[in-house]
Amino acid sequence: MGSNIARVDAAEKVTGAVQYTGDIRLPGMLHAKLLRSPYAHAEVLSIDTSRAERLPGVKAIISHKNTPRINYNSSCPPIFAGGFPVDQVLFDKKVRFAGEPVAAVAAVDLDTAEEALSRIEVAYQPLPFVLDAEEAMRLGAPEIHEVRMNTFSEINQESNDFETAMEASDHVFRGRYSTSSIQHCAMEPHVCVSKCDANGQVTVWSSTQIPFRLRIWLSKVLGLPVGKVRVISPALGGAFGGKEEMTVEPYAALLAMKSGKPVMLECTREEEFIDGRRRHASIMQLETGINEDGFFTARGVRAILQAGGYASHAPFVLGAAAGIFRMMYKAKAIRFDGRCVYTNTTPAGALRGYGGPQSIFVVERQLDEICRELHFEPLEFRLKNSYDKGETDSVTGWAITSGANKDCLVTAAEKIGWSRNRSPTGMGDIRRGIGFARYVYPTGVKGTWPESSEALAIVNEDGSVNIVTSAVDMGTGISTGLVQIAAEELHISPDKVNISLESDTAITPFDLGAYASKVTSVAGGAVKLAAVDVKQKLIAAASKILKTEVSELETNGGYVYSRLRPDERIAYGEIVTKSRYALDGATSLTGRGVYEPRTNTPTFGAQFAEVEVDVRTGRTKVLRIVAALDVGKAINPANIEGQVHGSIHMGLGFAISEYLAWNTGTGQIANPSFLDYKVFTAPDMPEIDVIILESPDPSSPYGIRGVGEQATLPTAPAIANAINDAIGLSIRDLPFTSEKIYKRLHDQT
Amino acid sequence: MGSNIARVDAAEKVTGAVQYTGDIRLPGMLHAKLLRSPYAHAEVLSIDTSRAERLPGVKAIISHKNTPRINYNSSCPPIFAGGFPVDQVLFDKKVRFAGEPVAAVAAVDLDTAEEALSRIEVAYQPLPFVLDAEEAMRLGAPEIHEVRMNTFSEINQESNDFETAMEASDHVFRGRYSTSSIQHCAMEPHVCVSKCDANGQVTVWSSTQIPFRLRIWLSKVLGLPVGKVRVISPALGGAFGGKEEMTVEPYAALLAMKSGKPVMLECTREEEFIDGRRRHASIMQLETGINEDGFFTARGVRAILQAGGYASHAPFVLGAAAGIFRMMYKAKAIRFDGRCVYTNTTPAGALRGYGGPQSIFVVERQLDEICRELHFEPLEFRLKNSYDKGETDSVTGWAITSGANKDCLVTAAEKIGWSRNRSPTGMGDIRRGIGFARYVYPTGVKGTWPESSEALAIVNEDGSVNIVTSAVDMGTGISTGLVQIAAEELHISPDKVNISLESDTAITPFDLGAYASKVTSVAGGAVKLAAVDVKQKLIAAASKILKTEVSELETNGGYVYSRLRPDERIAYGEIVTKSRYALDGATSLTGRGVYEPRTNTPTFGAQFAEVEVDVRTGRTKVLRIVAALDVGKAINPANIEGQVHGSIHMGLGFAISEYLAWNTGTGQIANPSFLDYKVFTAPDMPEIDVIILESPDPSSPYGIRGVGEQATLPTAPAIANAINDAIGLSIRDLPFTSEKIYKRLHDQT
Repeated sequence: MGSNIARVDAAEKVTGAVQYTGDIRLPGMLHAKLLRSPYAHAEVLSIDTSRAERLPGVKAIISHKNTPRINYNSSCPPIFAGGFPVDQVLFDKKVRFAGEPVAAVAAVDLDTAEEALSRIEVAYQPLPFVLDAEEAMRLGAPEIHEVRMNTFSEINQESNDFETAMEASDHVFRGRYSTSSIQHCAMEPHVCVSKCDANGQVTVWSSTQIPFRLRIWLSKVLGLPVGKVRVISPALGGAFGGKEEMTVEPYAALLAMKSGKPVMLECTREEEFIDGRRRHASIMQLETGINEDGFFTARGVRAILQAGGYASHAPFVLGAAAGIFRMMYKAKAIRFDGRCVYTNTTPAGALRGYGGPQSIFVVERQLDEICRELHFEPLEFRLKNSYDKGETDSVTGWAITSGANKDCLVTAAEKIGWSRNRSPTGMGDIRRGIGFARYVYPTGVKGTWPESSEALAIVNEDGSVNIVTSAVDMGTGISTGLVQIAAEELHISPDKVNISLESDTAITPFDLGAYASKVTSVAGGAVKLAAVDVKQKLIAAASKILKTEVSELETNGGYVYSRLRPDERIAYGEIVTKSRYALDGATSLTGRGVYEPRTNTPTFGAQFAEVEVDVRTGRTKVLRIVAALDVGKAINPANIEGQVHGSIHMGLGFAISEYLAWNTGTGQIANPSFLDYKVFTAPDMPEIDVIILESPDPSSPYGIRGVGEQATLPTAPAIANAINDAIGLSIRDLPFTSEKIYKRLHDQT
Repeated sequence: MGSNIARVDAAEKVTGAVQYTGDIRLPGMLHAKLLRSPYAHAEVLSIDTSRAERLPGVKAIISHKNTPRINYNSSCPPIFAGGFPVDQVLFDKKVRFAGEPVAAVAAVDLDTAEEALSRIEVAYQPLPFVLDAEEAMRLGAPEIHEVRMNTFSEINQESNDFETAMEASDHVFRGRYSTSSIQHCAMEPHVCVSKCDANGQVTVWSSTQIPFRLRIWLSKVLGLPVGKVRVISPALGGAFGGKEEMTVEPYAALLAMKSGKPVMLECTREEEFIDGRRRHASIMQLETGINEDGFFTARGVRAILQAGGYASHAPFVLGAAAGIFRMMYKAKAIRFDGRCVYTNTTPAGALRGYGGPQSIFVVERQLDEICRELHFEPLEFRLKNSYDKGETDSVTGWAITSGANKDCLVTAAEKIGWSRNRSPTGMGDIRRGIGFARYVYPTGVKGTWPESSEALAIVNEDGSVNIVTSAVDMGTGISTGLVQIAAEELHISPDKVNISLESDTAITPFDLGAYASKVTSVAGGAVKLAAVDVKQKLIAAASKILKTEVSELETNGGYVYSRLRPDERIAYGEIVTKSRYALDGATSLTGRGVYEPRTNTPTFGAQFAEVEVDVRTGRTKVLRIVAALDVGKAINPANIEGQVHGSIHMGLGFAISEYLAWNTGTGQIANPSFLDYKVFTAPDMPEIDVIILESPDPSSPYGIRGVGEQATLPTAPAIANAINDAIGLSIRDLPFTSEKIYKRLHDQT
């Protein structure tokens, strides 16, 4: 525990040996392709697949003509959950975004499948389309679903009287901020293989974060009982929320059912951009009241999320944005008005941060503007207005029982030398600035959903232990953390703990999925309990063998020993051998744990950015990032650093270079490739310092706080604030491209 | 329960969709071949693999020159078990049977691997060899291992004074009987795929009956900790004991470790005959004392098992033969002297019956001769001398607490019309006769080994249940039985129970393997307990939801309901949904069961055969078999009938047509193909009547008795006795080929 053991999947991954879903080859396996609408909004008048059907090698074609019309929500909410519009069907007679599937083909190979697509004739009646969320809300805008103002989900929260608090404020700030849409860009695309047994049992190998939730919704759209659908999640090659979705799976499953053959359906990179989900673009109107004493009086926002053609995660992303907005700073009154709006764009979904990046950007961007205008010291201002351990907010009711919120700020400020660097560093063409942002982000979604996870720990004859769990390792390294937890509890070396990267709804125990930065804490809690359970079983079995009271026995180094006579000891492996193979009644050496967290342990952090802006070109170069975060307890610090680096990498793209651009003439995404959509590469990366603070939370296993998403939240506002520091330009719209800065400088100067 | 539901694997199997080990295709997978010695006994002077190594496409070659020399026993005894010679190494510098591997090659395809074999030069020094067990015991016989008289395991049991009891007998019978060696002839050969992770973890997919026992021994010969070896057992295409062995697996694993690529090693049909194990040929000298009153006084045997080049299962097969010999009939004194003898023939192993067919043949054959000579009525004689319920034998200490031994005899006799048909039916060329035999065979090996099995039962959101077990279904249908047991306990339809045909030592819980006809009873016991456990969990969860006392709740038809208010009920699926997804703390709906039987429940049975012998050709045609057996409780009668048909089919081959023949000049097997080794085909089969009796055993789940092997035991003696009845010829040596009968008739007449 708390050690940088090598990741259990490292050797397999760096040698390319790991078997991902896309590596699966089943005998007779067909390859599928989706025919996608070129129109952003259109009626599908007719589909003629007859020419495609005649093509040799084509084994199955599906469209709205031969598939059931069953409504679903692709985010696969746990079945009880309300608040999710089930507004999608697999093939509708209307398309709502460019790239929406209208038919699917399975053929003996990809070339044949593609040729078949070209032979399917679809007659469309194009409809007016709308890409922008504000435009979509206007009277007379094209109606995408049958909802008023294309608005399908609203949040209207007010704590205390917001207007009164605003009126009583010494200063009032209002501003409009917007964030853009980025794509996950996981190295592994959405991919699945499906087969249908002669019994009608459907098995789906999918690159999914949520095997059990996917199983429920797959069974629904396939018209099968849950138990007749089996979802296997092999090793994942990245997900970032994009695979907390049902996308390709039902198409592959229907084609498998129809053809009687296994079917693989894998998205191309272009399809990932066109229909692989994305972050919700947002427009937020902030209204903030401040008193002379430097305390917030009123904090309010009107938020609009551009959801795309279907709802997917939007209502909950909006809820998360609201929660994070409220948790950021104390105030006398807080108001959050938000809405999710349909547009004729590819559906947005979960993407690392889940509403957090949008909220943190606007809050921390405006705060910087306020401090600048009122001459508050931004570090002091944040320290003064944010929560500290022991505080309970009277407005939100949020009790902070632990956490190093303020230490993160102070430590990171010190590291980057914040006080020394307040004034702009030059008046030439290349100007330097420092900016920062803080954040708070909960671990898990307990309260909105349950979070339970179950695990088994089975001891082998060599004293090693198999951990069995359905926790999905998206590539984050959680398997290594789970191994370390089991090793810790059982007092054995981590290399004596085995874990499989594959979960299987037919065999491995229940788990809700990998999301909300909670796997190490929730699945880890289950593994911890399972390890404790099997340790007690080992001690009980050793007690019989050693003829010693259980109360006298302890464990260490893979042995059970007598506290009173330490040389009286027995290795785990020997206990297994002697009790599992005992003639007088065998003993189970399977431990089991079910964990359900009590709360959403918050993670606090701060991030400082030092940038260099070339005023001739508008180009921003990020020189350095200092990231401090309170992880509660660092199970594997190197892996946490990896998560922070990855989060910052994504935050840099969000800030500077990544955004989905829509062609306003066609409604199609204009940059669906890595040539036109710029992801930071290694040489683009700044120097990064990661400062790990450990203020354990009493409610989570070992005090763990989530770290998978958190550090991506403050990167964009920290950079925006640094740009402001460098060139005096306040940017309220993401991303900060050279072009945008150049134009703004040009207009101003 | 007790119903003929369709086998859960039926549709998959009849459509050819089941994925067996041989269907596995991994990226970059190599194909391996074994180079086998043409000599039955020889020193390996040198091996030159250089020419083979230079062949393009050859990726790894192993022999004694580059593999560790680690002793093992291929029967993979549980690690504690003594009494098993560990006399084998993967590649020795001496070969002990024709077909023993001396090198192995992995190459990009089978053709290249075969070409590589032809380029390996092995210099042998041939040694004198011995094929016959009695010859092998003689002074001056070739020494195969360093043991006296080539004898490696002996049993000398005597209950009371045998010689005295013999001397006091009114009649004494002595005879020499022998049984021959048959091969399992499973449709699926021995096959495995192995891969070695970058971490050094070795995964083996193997067509094995004993994944956990294989794991232990594989780890030993590979020099790896047990936890670094993972054995996955996919669906099996028949085994019959031949896959209660480690055969191809270590070679494939070593080649995978050496090449860094997955490796498949699959035996050809010829290799199955040459090195796929076989039934032990036996020679038994019987000595029996009888009194005028028709009671046995003394029963004794001197048994020799021809084990082949290595010990494998032989000591326990001998032990089983001894146990069955003793259990068959009461007597004042019983003696069993047995020995296992090395010969320069392919090793024998476990084969349906495990010593039983040998013992039952000699006992029931001699008994028929005795009755014939002393004019005892053979049915009455058996009824008089065999055990009945409530009896405890003073000699063996065996207490018969339950069982329909005598009912089996009487019912089968009635069915075939035994009393009406006593006299030979004709004096022409075609003569008819009826003969029969009875048997007793234990379920499991409890007492010699442990028998524990563990299972999980996990409820899904539709109220269906996943059974997770490592019980191997060799094709016997046990999965269906386990499904029926779970359905029975949970009061749901069997189609609501899911079970996987694949076990995996890294994930599925512990089980000792599929052998000794005990899977339905032992793994079934675990499934029963797991189902009961999860039913209690369902009731506890329902109690919270319905706000009703647990004591008031019962289950039926997939619902938990109140006994007092039966319309107050909740479906299992709803319980899962409401408790698994409850916000206030999730509930585990995983049941667990560990089962360890108390005893080896015996199965009793009788079999009558009606035959027609053509005295011109010596050809025996079996017209009809009536098989009665006490199964305790028939979970799936149709499946039991299938097992009985299959057992009789194997018994017919053993009796009449199947035997491995060795070329005495070369020591090689002369008939390693289905052209020369005659297995009964559908048109050869007689009419078969199966009579299932149910006398439940109080010590096993539902009273189940094993049925997988039992009915193969009496077929050969029943036929031999029928032949004797038809043509007056007493045959003491298996098989009863036309040639043998013709010669005996010719010599006599």
